[in-house]
Amino acid sequence: MQTARTTPSRLAKRAHYDANTIHPILDEALFCTVSYVTDGQPMAIPTAFARLGDKIYIHGSVGSHFIREIEKGGPVCISVMLTDGLVLAKSAFHHSANYRSVVIFANAQKVTDEAERMNALALITDHLIPGRWDDLRPTTDSEMRKTTVLAFSLAEASAKVRTGGPSDDPEDENLPTWSGIIPMQTVRLTPVSAENSQDTPLPNYL
Amino acid sequence: MQTARTTPSRLAKRAHYDANTIHPILDEALFCTVSYVTDGQPMAIPTAFARLGDKIYIHGSVGSHFIREIEKGGPVCISVMLTDGLVLAKSAFHHSANYRSVVIFANAQKVTDEAERMNALALITDHLIPGRWDDLRPTTDSEMRKTTVLAFSLAEASAKVRTGGPSDDPEDENLPTWSGIIPMQTVRLTPVSAENSQDTPLPNYL
Repeated sequence: MQTARTTPSRLAKRAHYDANTIHPILDEALFCTVSYVTDGQPMAIPTAFARLGDKIYIHGSVGSHFIREIEKGGPVCISVMLTDGLVLAKSAFHHSANYRSVVIFANAQKVTDEAERMNALALITDHLIPGRWDDLRPTTDSEMRKTTVLAFSLAEASAKVRTGGPSDDPEDENLPTWSGIIPMQTVRLTPVSAENSQDTPLPNYL
Repeated sequence: MQTARTTPSRLAKRAHYDANTIHPILDEALFCTVSYVTDGQPMAIPTAFARLGDKIYIHGSVGSHFIREIEKGGPVCISVMLTDGLVLAKSAFHHSANYRSVVIFANAQKVTDEAERMNALALITDHLIPGRWDDLRPTTDSEMRKTTVLAFSLAEASAKVRTGGPSDDPEDENLPTWSGIIPMQTVRLTPVSAENSQDTPLPNYL
């Protein structure tokens, strides 16, 4: 949703407020950075998350300073960034990056319903490794007691997206310097079995 | 440096305060997330940066809200995260990630010396694409006037690093579920020439 704080001061043409742009970025990014304020001091923690409809979930230890601070419900800014490429122009000034980012302004809502808590943990696990949750033993009551689950509304989320090649100044167009895009991608390599799984076949979902 | 705000509340064994750990992470990460506070509201912006000795530089448009806010010198939290792998344990509870992250608490110092400003822009450019700066036409006075360069001390920087396989509970060790690591890597793909560089050979540094 476009509000004062989700409207960028620069390059407003790159801003998007529709779920069709925002949701796929959140679904592709594995980690977000949660920024919050403690006594006027900004703090930032990278963490896993998962989206369900128009909210996202994070989880953490009930004892973590981070979780205890943000569960109070103060303002939080959650950001994700996917880097699709480096954009090399003919001048340093017009170098850029192709990226898809999302910024969410929200306040934590502590999830207390046990079924919703369990479902959020399943979503976070399957966001990282689709299909993993159903292959795992049930989470125990003790593990659930040690875990806090927080939800954040996407009502005040916005995306910024840059695609395409460099935009050079007209007077630079004929310079002999190479210009273009270096595409970037995050890839998963061959899984490495743990010592206690040397004889266990790799599951199909990997 | 270990201070109250750089000491994690959880997993303190993963924390590091030495330059030998912190500097290589900052040199490998291409983008950081700058978190700051405006009227009590946390804000976060991903941006390029470069390290020189025990400080880092960022740059931005003199007109951007972000730059104008943080150049006032208020407290800033800069974070970077490199994801080396997903760690799959036999229980959901012990799933984790292998990562190398750095968090810097600092206040922006506006760089005013023209030579230092130019050098910072060269460092930021070469951090993304080593060797690029010397291949580019000189930056113009007009471009320099449109650009703000900010420096941040690394005095209060800390790293968190996780490596290795899953740590399972003893009672889970013999479960038939596969466990191990899915290594992850960010790769650069074949460069794509811009329209104005179709006949320009790819430079050696690419």
